[in-house]
Amino acid sequence: MDLLKKKILDEGSVEDGDILKVDSFLNHQLDIAFLNEIGKEFKKLFEDRKITKILTLETSGIAIASIAAQYFNVPVVFAKKIATKNLDKATYESDVYSYTKRRTYKIKVSKKYIKPEDHILILDDFLANAQAALGLMDIINKGGATLEGIGVVIEKGFQDGGKLLREKDINLKSLVIIDSFVEGKVIFR
Amino acid sequence: MDLLKKKILDEGSVEDGDILKVDSFLNHQLDIAFLNEIGKEFKKLFEDRKITKILTLETSGIAIASIAAQYFNVPVVFAKKIATKNLDKATYESDVYSYTKRRTYKIKVSKKYIKPEDHILILDDFLANAQAALGLMDIINKGGATLEGIGVVIEKGFQDGGKLLREKDINLKSLVIIDSFVEGKVIFR
Repeated sequence: MDLLKKKILDEGSVEDGDILKVDSFLNHQLDIAFLNEIGKEFKKLFEDRKITKILTLETSGIAIASIAAQYFNVPVVFAKKIATKNLDKATYESDVYSYTKRRTYKIKVSKKYIKPEDHILILDDFLANAQAALGLMDIINKGGATLEGIGVVIEKGFQDGGKLLREKDINLKSLVIIDSFVEGKVIFR
Repeated sequence: MDLLKKKILDEGSVEDGDILKVDSFLNHQLDIAFLNEIGKEFKKLFEDRKITKILTLETSGIAIASIAAQYFNVPVVFAKKIATKNLDKATYESDVYSYTKRRTYKIKVSKKYIKPEDHILILDDFLANAQAALGLMDIINKGGATLEGIGVVIEKGFQDGGKLLREKDINLKSLVIIDSFVEGKVIFR
Protein backbone atom coordinates (compact mmCIF):
# COMPACT_ATOMS: atom_id res chain seq x y z
CA MET A 1 0.00 0.00 0.00
CA ASP A 2 1.92 2.99 -1.36
CA LEU A 3 0.03 5.59 0.65
CA LEU A 4 1.04 3.80 3.86
CA LYS A 5 4.69 3.51 2.78
CA LYS A 6 4.74 7.24 2.11
CA LYS A 7 3.12 7.96 5.47
CA ILE A 8 5.70 5.81 7.28
CA LEU A 9 8.60 7.47 5.45
CA ASP A 10 7.19 10.98 6.00
CA GLU A 11 6.07 10.67 9.61
CA GLY A 12 7.60 7.55 11.15
CA SER A 13 10.87 7.40 13.01
CA VAL A 14 13.12 4.51 13.96
CA GLU A 15 14.21 4.46 17.58
CA ASP A 16 16.56 2.23 19.54
CA GLY A 17 17.52 0.42 16.34
CA ASP A 18 14.36 -1.59 15.73
CA ILE A 19 11.34 0.29 17.06
CA LEU A 20 9.25 2.02 14.42
CA LYS A 21 7.38 4.92 15.92
CA VAL A 22 4.22 5.90 14.05
CA ASP A 23 2.43 7.75 16.77
CA SER A 24 1.50 10.75 14.63
CA PHE A 25 -1.16 8.68 12.84
CA LEU A 26 -1.53 5.17 14.30
CA ASN A 27 -0.57 4.78 17.97
CA HIS A 28 -1.21 8.01 19.85
CA GLN A 29 -2.61 10.58 17.47
CA LEU A 30 -5.04 8.90 15.07
CA ASP A 31 -5.30 10.20 11.51
CA ILE A 32 -8.91 9.15 10.99
CA ALA A 33 -9.05 10.07 7.27
CA PHE A 34 -5.99 7.89 6.75
CA LEU A 35 -7.46 5.06 8.85
CA ASN A 36 -10.40 5.11 6.45
CA GLU A 37 -8.01 4.39 3.57
CA ILE A 38 -6.59 1.51 5.60
CA GLY A 39 -10.11 0.25 6.29
CA LYS A 40 -10.98 0.29 2.58
CA GLU A 41 -7.79 -1.60 1.78
CA PHE A 42 -8.60 -4.33 4.33
CA LYS A 43 -12.09 -4.62 2.83
CA LYS A 44 -10.54 -5.08 -0.63
CA LEU A 45 -8.11 -7.72 0.64
CA PHE A 46 -10.77 -9.76 2.45
CA GLU A 47 -13.64 -9.11 0.02
CA ASP A 48 -13.98 -12.81 -0.81
CA ARG A 49 -14.52 -13.79 2.80
CA LYS A 50 -17.74 -13.89 4.74
CA ILE A 51 -16.91 -11.87 7.87
CA THR A 52 -19.35 -11.50 10.78
CA LYS A 53 -17.05 -9.91 13.34
CA ILE A 54 -13.70 -8.17 13.67
CA LEU A 55 -11.54 -9.13 16.63
CA THR A 56 -8.66 -6.99 17.87
CA LEU A 57 -6.66 -6.37 21.01
CA GLU A 58 -6.70 -3.27 23.18
CA THR A 59 -5.37 -0.59 22.90
CA SER A 60 -3.74 0.09 19.58
CA GLY A 61 -5.99 -2.14 17.46
CA ILE A 62 -9.25 -0.48 18.47
CA ALA A 63 -9.27 2.56 16.18
CA ILE A 64 -8.11 0.56 13.14
CA ALA A 65 -10.70 -2.16 13.73
CA SER A 66 -13.51 0.35 14.41
CA ILE A 67 -12.93 2.36 11.25
CA ALA A 68 -12.41 -0.76 9.10
CA ALA A 69 -15.57 -2.39 10.51
CA GLN A 70 -17.64 0.26 8.72
CA TYR A 71 -16.64 -1.26 5.37
CA PHE A 72 -17.58 -4.77 6.53
CA ASN A 73 -20.79 -3.72 8.34
CA VAL A 74 -19.91 -5.84 11.34
CA PRO A 75 -19.27 -5.20 15.05
CA VAL A 76 -15.83 -5.18 16.64
CA VAL A 77 -14.79 -7.08 19.74
CA PHE A 78 -11.57 -6.16 21.46
CA ALA A 79 -9.78 -8.57 23.75
CA LYS A 80 -8.91 -7.07 27.11
CA LYS A 81 -5.45 -7.33 28.53
CA ILE A 82 -6.37 -6.96 32.16
CA ALA A 83 -9.36 -8.37 33.97
CA THR A 84 -11.40 -5.25 34.68
CA LYS A 85 -14.18 -5.06 37.22
CA ASN A 86 -16.88 -4.96 34.56
CA LEU A 87 -15.78 -7.92 32.47
CA ASP A 88 -17.92 -11.05 32.47
CA LYS A 89 -16.72 -13.88 34.60
CA ALA A 90 -17.31 -16.25 31.68
CA THR A 91 -14.40 -15.52 29.36
CA TYR A 92 -12.16 -17.25 26.87
CA GLU A 93 -8.57 -16.61 27.87
CA SER A 94 -5.15 -17.02 26.38
CA ASP A 95 -1.61 -16.23 27.48
CA VAL A 96 0.44 -13.86 25.36
CA TYR A 97 4.16 -13.35 25.74
CA SER A 98 5.37 -9.84 25.02
CA TYR A 99 8.95 -9.70 23.76
CA THR A 100 8.93 -5.91 24.19
CA LYS A 101 7.86 -6.04 27.81
CA ARG A 102 9.45 -9.43 28.52
CA ARG A 103 6.45 -10.78 30.36
CA THR A 104 3.38 -12.93 29.81
CA TYR A 105 -0.03 -11.36 30.11
CA LYS A 106 -3.54 -12.72 29.85
CA ILE A 107 -6.00 -11.65 27.18
CA LYS A 108 -9.70 -12.22 27.64
CA VAL A 109 -12.90 -12.08 25.63
CA SER A 110 -16.36 -12.61 27.07
CA LYS A 111 -17.90 -15.87 25.86
CA LYS A 112 -20.97 -13.86 24.83
CA TYR A 113 -19.09 -12.30 21.92
CA ILE A 114 -17.40 -15.30 20.28
CA LYS A 115 -19.92 -17.81 18.98
CA PRO A 116 -19.55 -20.94 16.82
CA GLU A 117 -21.42 -19.22 13.99
CA ASP A 118 -18.95 -16.30 13.89
CA HIS A 119 -16.54 -15.82 10.98
CA ILE A 120 -13.80 -13.66 12.37
CA LEU A 121 -11.25 -11.31 10.90
CA ILE A 122 -8.40 -10.34 13.21
CA LEU A 123 -7.04 -6.81 12.67
CA ASP A 124 -4.06 -5.27 14.42
CA ASP A 125 -1.51 -2.51 13.99
CA PHE A 126 1.77 -4.44 14.07
CA LEU A 127 2.85 -8.02 13.44
CA ALA A 128 6.22 -8.93 14.93
CA ASN A 129 6.44 -12.26 16.73
CA ALA A 130 2.72 -13.02 16.26
CA GLN A 131 2.24 -13.71 19.96
CA ALA A 132 -0.85 -11.51 20.12
CA ALA A 133 -2.26 -13.06 16.93
CA LEU A 134 -1.72 -16.57 18.31
CA GLY A 135 -3.50 -15.58 21.52
CA LEU A 136 -6.48 -14.21 19.57
CA MET A 137 -6.55 -17.35 17.38
CA ASP A 138 -6.57 -19.46 20.52
CA ILE A 139 -9.60 -17.53 21.80
CA ILE A 140 -11.42 -17.92 18.44
CA ASN A 141 -10.66 -21.65 18.58
CA LYS A 142 -11.92 -21.97 22.16
CA GLY A 143 -15.15 -20.24 21.11
CA GLY A 144 -15.59 -22.65 18.20
CA ALA A 145 -15.67 -19.77 15.69
CA THR A 146 -13.99 -19.65 12.27
CA LEU A 147 -10.91 -17.55 11.57
CA GLU A 148 -11.27 -15.97 8.12
CA GLY A 149 -8.01 -14.07 8.09
CA ILE A 150 -5.59 -11.74 9.80
CA GLY A 151 -4.93 -8.22 8.58
CA VAL A 152 -2.08 -6.14 9.94
CA VAL A 153 -1.07 -2.63 9.06
CA ILE A 154 2.69 -3.07 9.47
CA GLU A 155 4.53 -6.40 9.44
CA LYS A 156 8.08 -6.48 10.72
CA GLY A 157 9.41 -8.95 8.15
CA PHE A 158 12.65 -9.43 10.05
CA GLN A 159 10.81 -11.02 12.95
CA ASP A 160 9.30 -14.47 12.58
CA GLY A 161 5.57 -13.86 13.14
CA GLY A 162 4.64 -13.60 9.46
CA LYS A 163 6.57 -16.76 8.54
CA LEU A 164 4.99 -18.64 11.43
CA LEU A 165 1.42 -17.67 10.45
CA ARG A 166 1.96 -18.34 6.73
CA GLU A 167 3.36 -21.80 7.53
CA LYS A 168 0.10 -22.48 9.34
CA ASP A 169 -1.75 -21.51 6.13
CA ILE A 170 -3.38 -18.52 7.82
CA ASN A 171 -4.89 -16.03 5.38
CA LEU A 172 -2.53 -13.24 6.44
CA LYS A 173 -2.46 -9.86 4.68
CA SER A 174 0.00 -7.16 5.70
CA LEU A 175 -0.45 -3.71 4.21
CA VAL A 176 3.30 -3.19 4.28
CA ILE A 177 6.20 -5.45 5.22
CA ILE A 178 9.38 -3.92 6.56
CA ASP A 179 12.48 -5.91 5.74
CA SER A 180 14.93 -4.02 7.88
CA PHE A 181 16.00 -0.74 9.36
CA VAL A 182 19.31 0.49 7.95
CA GLU A 183 20.85 3.40 9.80
CA GLY A 184 17.46 4.63 10.92
CA LYS A 185 15.91 4.22 7.46
CA VAL A 186 12.97 1.93 6.78
CA ILE A 187 13.57 -0.67 4.03
CA PHE A 188 10.32 -2.12 2.66
CA ARG A 189 10.08 -5.60 1.11
CA MET B 1 -30.92 10.65 22.82
CA ASP B 2 -33.82 8.18 22.66
CA LEU B 3 -31.94 5.60 20.59
CA LEU B 4 -29.28 5.41 23.31
CA LYS B 5 -31.84 5.12 26.10
CA LYS B 6 -33.47 2.23 24.25
CA LYS B 7 -30.08 0.57 23.72
CA ILE B 8 -29.23 0.88 27.42
CA LEU B 9 -32.61 -0.52 28.48
CA ASP B 10 -32.45 -3.36 25.93
CA GLU B 11 -28.82 -4.39 26.33
CA GLY B 12 -27.41 -2.85 29.50
CA SER B 13 -27.41 -4.44 32.92
CA VAL B 14 -26.89 -3.04 36.39
CA GLU B 15 -24.39 -4.90 38.53
CA ASP B 16 -23.28 -4.51 42.13
CA GLY B 17 -25.92 -1.84 42.68
CA ASP B 18 -24.32 1.03 40.74
CA ILE B 19 -22.29 -0.32 37.83
CA LEU B 20 -23.95 -0.05 34.43
CA LYS B 21 -22.61 -2.67 32.09
CA VAL B 22 -22.92 -1.79 28.41
CA ASP B 23 -20.29 -4.08 27.00
CA SER B 24 -22.46 -5.43 24.19
CA PHE B 25 -22.08 -2.14 22.31
CA LEU B 26 -19.73 0.31 24.04
CA ASN B 27 -17.04 -1.25 26.23
CA HIS B 28 -16.07 -4.66 24.90
CA GLN B 29 -18.08 -5.41 21.78
CA LEU B 30 -18.43 -2.23 19.72
CA ASP B 31 -21.62 -1.69 17.73
CA ILE B 32 -20.05 0.44 15.02
CA ALA B 33 -23.32 1.33 13.26
CA PHE B 34 -24.61 2.58 16.60
CA LEU B 35 -21.39 4.47 17.33
CA ASN B 36 -21.97 6.32 14.06
CA GLU B 37 -25.32 7.54 15.41
CA ILE B 38 -23.52 8.70 18.55
CA GLY B 39 -20.90 10.45 16.41
CA LYS B 40 -23.57 12.29 14.43
CA GLU B 41 -25.26 13.37 17.66
CA PHE B 42 -22.00 14.80 19.05
CA LYS B 43 -21.49 16.68 15.78
CA LYS B 44 -24.97 18.17 16.12
CA LEU B 45 -24.35 19.20 19.74
CA PHE B 46 -21.00 20.86 19.02
CA GLU B 47 -21.83 22.18 15.54
CA ASP B 48 -21.34 25.80 16.62
CA ARG B 49 -17.79 25.19 17.81
CA LYS B 50 -14.60 25.28 15.82
CA ILE B 51 -12.96 21.95 16.66
CA THR B 52 -9.48 21.01 15.43
CA LYS B 53 -8.88 17.88 17.50
CA ILE B 54 -10.70 15.33 19.62
CA LEU B 55 -9.03 14.22 22.83
CA THR B 56 -9.96 11.07 24.69
CA LEU B 57 -8.49 8.59 27.12
CA GLU B 58 -7.52 5.00 26.44
CA THR B 59 -9.15 2.48 26.27
CA SER B 60 -12.87 2.91 26.20
CA GLY B 61 -12.92 6.37 24.63
CA ILE B 62 -10.98 5.41 21.51
CA ALA B 63 -13.72 3.84 19.38
CA ILE B 64 -16.25 6.57 20.24
CA ALA B 65 -13.75 9.35 19.48
CA SER B 66 -12.54 7.69 16.26
CA ILE B 67 -16.01 7.22 14.79
CA ALA B 68 -17.17 10.68 15.89
CA ALA B 69 -14.04 12.32 14.45
CA GLN B 70 -15.26 11.44 10.96
CA TYR B 71 -18.10 13.93 11.35
CA PHE B 72 -15.71 16.67 12.50
CA ASN B 73 -12.96 15.86 9.97
CA VAL B 74 -10.30 16.09 12.64
CA PRO B 75 -7.70 13.74 14.13
CA VAL B 76 -8.03 12.06 17.52
CA VAL B 77 -5.43 12.01 20.26
CA PHE B 78 -5.80 9.56 23.10
CA ALA B 79 -4.08 10.11 26.43
CA LYS B 80 -2.12 7.10 27.61
CA LYS B 81 -2.53 5.73 31.08
CA ILE B 82 0.82 4.05 31.34
CA ALA B 83 4.17 5.25 30.10
CA THR B 84 4.85 2.86 27.23
CA LYS B 85 8.24 2.33 25.69
CA ASN B 86 7.30 4.18 22.52
CA LEU B 87 5.87 7.33 24.05
CA ASP B 88 7.76 10.58 23.68
CA LYS B 89 9.73 11.74 26.65
CA ALA B 90 8.27 15.22 26.21
CA THR B 91 4.73 14.83 27.53
CA TYR B 92 2.05 16.79 29.33
CA GLU B 93 0.98 14.80 32.36
CA SER B 94 -1.78 14.88 34.91
CA ASP B 95 -2.79 12.73 37.86
CA VAL B 96 -6.19 11.07 37.81
CA TYR B 97 -7.81 9.46 40.81
CA SER B 98 -9.96 6.45 40.02
CA TYR B 99 -12.78 5.90 42.52
CA THR B 100 -13.46 2.48 40.99
CA LYS B 101 -9.91 1.28 41.36
CA ARG B 102 -9.13 3.41 44.43
CA ARG B 103 -5.79 4.58 43.14
CA THR B 104 -4.18 7.49 41.34
CA TYR B 105 -2.71 6.97 37.90
CA LYS B 106 -0.87 9.22 35.50
CA ILE B 107 -2.22 10.17 32.09
CA LYS B 108 0.12 11.46 29.41
CA VAL B 109 -0.04 13.12 26.01
CA SER B 110 2.95 13.89 23.86
CA LYS B 111 3.60 17.64 23.61
CA LYS B 112 3.65 17.23 19.83
CA TYR B 113 -0.10 16.68 19.73
CA ILE B 114 -1.45 19.49 21.92
CA LYS B 115 -0.63 22.91 20.50
CA PRO B 116 -1.75 26.44 21.48
CA GLU B 117 -3.66 26.74 18.19
CA ASP B 118 -5.74 23.62 18.95
CA HIS B 119 -9.45 23.84 19.75
CA ILE B 120 -10.22 20.62 21.52
CA LEU B 121 -13.32 18.56 22.12
CA ILE B 122 -13.04 15.91 24.84
CA LEU B 123 -15.12 12.78 24.23
CA ASP B 124 -15.54 9.86 26.60
CA ASP B 125 -17.88 6.99 27.35
CA PHE B 126 -18.85 7.70 30.98
CA LEU B 127 -18.90 10.72 33.25
CA ALA B 128 -19.03 9.91 36.94
CA ASN B 129 -16.71 11.89 39.21
CA ALA B 130 -15.10 13.78 36.29
CA GLN B 131 -11.62 12.85 37.44
CA ALA B 132 -10.59 11.75 33.94
CA ALA B 133 -12.14 14.88 32.41
CA LEU B 134 -10.28 17.12 34.87
CA GLY B 135 -7.03 15.35 34.01
CA LEU B 136 -7.60 15.86 30.27
CA MET B 137 -8.53 19.53 30.88
CA ASP B 138 -5.31 19.95 32.86
CA ILE B 139 -3.33 18.57 29.89
CA ILE B 140 -5.13 20.90 27.44
CA ASN B 141 -4.35 23.79 29.77
CA LYS B 142 -0.68 22.83 30.06
CA GLY B 143 -0.48 22.71 26.26
CA GLY B 144 -2.03 26.18 26.00
CA ALA B 145 -4.86 24.87 23.81
CA THR B 146 -8.55 25.83 24.01
CA LEU B 147 -11.20 23.50 25.40
CA GLU B 148 -14.34 23.78 23.26
CA GLY B 149 -16.44 21.26 25.11
CA ILE B 150 -16.85 17.84 26.65
CA GLY B 151 -19.15 15.20 25.23
CA VAL B 152 -19.96 12.03 27.14
CA VAL B 153 -22.16 9.17 26.13
CA ILE B 154 -23.51 8.33 29.59
CA GLU B 155 -23.49 10.66 32.59
CA LYS B 156 -24.12 9.18 36.00
CA GLY B 157 -26.20 12.04 37.34
CA PHE B 158 -26.05 10.71 40.89
CA GLN B 159 -22.30 11.30 41.03
CA ASP B 160 -20.94 14.82 41.18
CA GLY B 161 -18.84 15.08 37.99
CA GLY B 162 -21.53 16.76 35.88
CA LYS B 163 -22.34 19.31 38.58
CA LEU B 164 -18.66 20.06 39.07
CA LEU B 165 -18.04 20.67 35.34
CA ARG B 166 -21.21 22.76 34.85
CA GLU B 167 -20.25 24.94 37.81
CA LYS B 168 -16.98 25.63 36.02
CA ASP B 169 -19.03 26.74 32.97
CA ILE B 170 -17.68 23.91 30.85
CA ASN B 171 -19.68 23.27 27.67
CA LEU B 172 -20.69 19.77 28.75
CA LYS B 173 -23.12 17.66 26.72
CA SER B 174 -24.22 14.23 27.91
CA LEU B 175 -26.20 12.07 25.50
CA VAL B 176 -28.08 10.56 28.42
CA ILE B 177 -28.07 11.26 32.14
CA ILE B 178 -28.90 8.48 34.56
CA ASP B 179 -30.53 9.69 37.75
CA SER B 180 -30.47 6.44 39.67
CA PHE B 181 -30.65 2.70 39.59
CA VAL B 182 -33.74 1.36 41.34
CA GLU B 183 -33.77 -2.38 41.93
CA GLY B 184 -31.55 -2.98 38.94
CA LYS B 185 -33.57 -0.66 36.67
CA VAL B 186 -32.09 2.40 35.03
CA ILE B 187 -33.93 5.67 35.76
CA PHE B 188 -33.11 8.42 33.26
CA ARG B 189 -33.32 12.12 34.07
